Amino acid sequence: MQLSYVIQSNPIQRPTLLHVPPAVRLGEPISAVDTPALLIELNAFEHNVARMQSAVNAAGVALRPHAKAHKTPAISLAQIQAGAVGVCCQKVSEALPFVEAGVRNIHISNEIGSPAKAALLAELARHASTSVCVDHPTQIGWLADAVDAPLDVFVELNTGQDRCGVNDADAVLRLVEKLQTHRQLRFKGLQAYHGKVQHVRSQQERGDIAKRAAERAAAVVVALDARGVRCEVVTGGGTGSLEFDLQGGIYTEVQAGSYVFMDADYARNDYADEWRFEQSLFLASSVMSLGDGSRIVLDAGLKSLAVDTGLPDIWGRPLDYISANDEHGIVTARDGAPHPALGEQLLLVPGHCDPTLNLHDELIAFRDGVVEAIWPIAARGLSR
Amino acid sequence: MQLSYVIQSNPIQRPTLLHVPPAVRLGEPISAVDTPALLIELNAFEHNVARMQSAVNAAGVALRPHAKAHKTPAISLAQIQAGAVGVCCQKVSEALPFVEAGVRNIHISNEIGSPAKAALLAELARHASTSVCVDHPTQIGWLADAVDAPLDVFVELNTGQDRCGVNDADAVLRLVEKLQTHRQLRFKGLQAYHGKVQHVRSQQERGDIAKRAAERAAAVVVALDARGVRCEVVTGGGTGSLEFDLQGGIYTEVQAGSYVFMDADYARNDYADEWRFEQSLFLASSVMSLGDGSRIVLDAGLKSLAVDTGLPDIWGRPLDYISANDEHGIVTARDGAPHPALGEQLLLVPGHCDPTLNLHDELIAFRDGVVEAIWPIAARGLSR
Repeated sequence: MQLSYVIQSNPIQRPTLLHVPPAVRLGEPISAVDTPALLIELNAFEHNVARMQSAVNAAGVALRPHAKAHKTPAISLAQIQAGAVGVCCQKVSEALPFVEAGVRNIHISNEIGSPAKAALLAELARHASTSVCVDHPTQIGWLADAVDAPLDVFVELNTGQDRCGVNDADAVLRLVEKLQTHRQLRFKGLQAYHGKVQHVRSQQERGDIAKRAAERAAAVVVALDARGVRCEVVTGGGTGSLEFDLQGGIYTEVQAGSYVFMDADYARNDYADEWRFEQSLFLASSVMSLGDGSRIVLDAGLKSLAVDTGLPDIWGRPLDYISANDEHGIVTARDGAPHPALGEQLLLVPGHCDPTLNLHDELIAFRDGVVEAIWPIAARGLSR
Repeated sequence: MQLSYVIQSNPIQRPTLLHVPPAVRLGEPISAVDTPALLIELNAFEHNVARMQSAVNAAGVALRPHAKAHKTPAISLAQIQAGAVGVCCQKVSEALPFVEAGVRNIHISNEIGSPAKAALLAELARHASTSVCVDHPTQIGWLADAVDAPLDVFVELNTGQDRCGVNDADAVLRLVEKLQTHRQLRFKGLQAYHGKVQHVRSQQERGDIAKRAAERAAAVVVALDARGVRCEVVTGGGTGSLEFDLQGGIYTEVQAGSYVFMDADYARNDYADEWRFEQSLFLASSVMSLGDGSRIVLDAGLKSLAVDTGLPDIWGRPLDYISANDEHGIVTARDGAPHPALGEQLLLVPGHCDPTLNLHDELIAFRDGVVEAIWPIAARGLSR
């Protein structure tokens, strides 16, 4: 059988009245939010933005927060207003809504993987001060073919994560020499990011790994300097390793992103008090079934929450979210705790902020329980 | 510090040229697809649609495929054209794009969790033949308050999954009696779906669990009949339990959805040959870094692939996807296998189809390596 994919032949009544209503309106209490919906608490958010800026200012390091964590231009604009020098994006397509919203200084903290992506990067560079990473001469060739105006290029150094990036100063130098054959490509420095360190629980152990990563970067900077190649910028670091990144003296710019939100995974890390950011990100969910009366079933599962680093916590209630199905969450009450009622709204702390944001189209911003703004997650789904 | 969230004050050049280009155009080969992008192979898809319809026809059972698996109206229209009686949706908002596309027979295979959702359901019921599940008298009250035209209502029976649904005939009967107090609510039958059975690997064990579930449903149908309450429809079943659902004689309608795609998890089940559907769903991904030369890094991670049931398989290549980061996939080559080149495109089989579809805005349909259609995943993100 070959299907022809035609629309059904019965006449279609134009469903002009049939649209998804807004989850909530400005000025309404968050208890009125139709669930599941993603929320940000503004007092915690603003505290986090201010705390981070004051920490980097005190260390004399620039802040270029990662937009991959939130994909929300309104958040980047708040960070830039507070003093951030620009943003990082992980994909070229991800950067476009930020330019549209007025962010004009963007580092693509990743390698581009094809000539088509190099062409889009060239287009981006016509609208914003743009930089990108390389770790292979082929990528340099793609960039050189696509880009005409001057472009800042970072060589990515592997500092222990064993993902992208070359391993040593000689390999960096070979790429710098290749860059120097193209007039429009300017070597700007090193990207040295270690993703795995961010989620190590022990502060001591996190510090040890972060310091070894910084030492690897520092050794390469020195070796390049001895060969007459200056690293103007060393960019890297993250929310989990921040206190060590700022102390190490090697990063001129940090890329932390998750600090604006925190999540259940980051909350499980052991921090000195001053380096613990506040939880601002919540998923509003409701009890949609009690089953036979002994169960608690929420309306939010895998399609509303990323669970790759663990299940969500339930905020301020002696309840445990024990299993995520596609559209359902299974909850149990701790010993003797009262069960929530059918229809009751609960706030969940997502396990992992970045991929959770990527599931939602808007972020409902509230303060003191009242909705103040609704921010489009404009780069949601832009992974090319 | 209180932030005011204003747009940056520098004048903004309207970026009219700065949009995300299409991933591919009709008629181009899939090797031209900008990655990551989600693909469907049409020969396998059409085989699956036809095979399922012929299986349910032979069993004398109606097919109401679940749209939560694909969220793509074009797929539902193809299923209806082949003989499906309508679709299932898991959320009321999820149903709206299907109505827009011309699907006019929709079962919400879930309970509604609030008066607001009951109101939206009432609106849906003005545009499509609609039914919904209940497992609590409060939900019946919400429906009765919202709905004026006749509405078919199913009572959900827990057949062993211990999620939504009441446990026995007495509990069903209490809800039927409550329904009978509302003129516009009509008891249509039972929903008896057991999600956990779908992913049990052993065919024998899957059969045993599915049969026990069917026996529980059958016993309730008999008990209701003895009280003068007829179940016109018993709806349930899925891709993993299909052969048992069709043999059991209790389901009048099956809800399978994933069979159109298959995925790495469903592929790991042990099936009789005739019940194994073909793999039609792929994620196109490219090698974007080789790191220091010893590594293979893809451009697709957690934001392009759901990994809750396991990592993706790499189609037709002796390569293993061993770790998913937010935007990266780490791959290793099996002993002695050649490494793919930088920029090379690989096809991945997602671990879990449903939440993977929910990450993408479009599904690129191809046949014999050439793009034939691009289908909007119109219900992506509609989880309310």
